[in-house]
Amino acid sequence: MRLTSYTDYALRTLMFLAANQDRLVTIQEIADTHGIAKNHLSKVVHQLGQLGYIDTLRGRSGGLRLGREPADINIGAVVRQTENDFFMAACFDTASAGCIYAGQCSLQGTLSAATHAFLAVLDGATLDSMLAASQSKKGPRGAVKAVQMHFKAPKGA
Amino acid sequence: MRLTSYTDYALRTLMFLAANQDRLVTIQEIADTHGIAKNHLSKVVHQLGQLGYIDTLRGRSGGLRLGREPADINIGAVVRQTENDFFMAACFDTASAGCIYAGQCSLQGTLSAATHAFLAVLDGATLDSMLAASQSKKGPRGAVKAVQMHFKAPKGA
Repeated sequence: MRLTSYTDYALRTLMFLAANQDRLVTIQEIADTHGIAKNHLSKVVHQLGQLGYIDTLRGRSGGLRLGREPADINIGAVVRQTENDFFMAACFDTASAGCIYAGQCSLQGTLSAATHAFLAVLDGATLDSMLAASQSKKGPRGAVKAVQMHFKAPKGA
Repeated sequence: MRLTSYTDYALRTLMFLAANQDRLVTIQEIADTHGIAKNHLSKVVHQLGQLGYIDTLRGRSGGLRLGREPADINIGAVVRQTENDFFMAACFDTASAGCIYAGQCSLQGTLSAATHAFLAVLDGATLDSMLAASQSKKGPRGAVKAVQMHFKAPKGA
C-alpha cells in the first residue's frame, strides 16, 4: 500500500516552502534539492496553487511561497486532494467490472472504515507540526520514531 | 491510495473458498468467476498455500479448500502478508535516495501512525465476518454502506 509519488511530491514541496518562508523559491530549486523531475513537480505546484496552498509571483524576481500559514495547512486535506482515489479493492471502482461480491460482502465497508481511520490520523496533523519537528532537536522525534515501520506481522501470524 | 491487485485477488480467493466450503474448487473456476488471469491467480494461490490459508489436494479429483476456519483468518494479517510494503512516502524506502528531510520531520511518524490505524481496523475483521454479511440479507450491509466512499473533502476544504 502506497500513497502516489504525486502526493509525496506535494507534501515535500509544502515542507520546502514552510522551511523557507523568509524568501521566494523556484520550482527548479525544489526539483534539484529533492531530486524530482521538474516537469512532474510543475504539475504538483500548479495544483497546489489552484488549491490556494501556494502563491506564485511572476517575473524575473518572482517565485513560490506558501499561500496559507503552515498551521492552516492540514495534511489530511492535502492528501485527500492530491490522491487520485482511495480504491482499496475492485469493489470501490464502480466504473470497472468490479467484483461479483460487490454489495454482498462487508469487505468494502471494512476497507472504507480502515481508510477513514488512516485519514483521521492525517486530519490531526498540520504542516506546522511537521515543521516543528524538523526545526527542534528536542521535538517529538523520539515519539515519532517509536511508531515507525512495524506494519508487518511475524511470519505465520 | 490503493492496495495492490495481488491483495485484492488474495481476498477474493479466500472469499470464494469460504463461500464454497462444501466442495473443492479449482484455480480456473476462481479465475473465470472473477475475471482474473489464471497465471496471476496461481501466484496468489501458491503464496496463500505457503501461508497455510489454503490446502491444495493434488490429483484428478483434487482442488483447493480453506486451510483454516474462516473465523481464524484475520483480514489484517492477510493484508500485511500479501502487500509488498507500506511505503507511504519516499522516507519509508531506506534503499532508495529517500528524502532530504528523513529523520528530521514528523511526516513519516504521522503516516506510520495512520497506517497502523488502517491496519488496526482490518485486524478487527475475519473472513468469517465478511462471509456472514454475504450470506445474510439482514446482515450488516446497511451499516457497511453508510461508511463507504466519502474520503474526499469538499473542494477548497
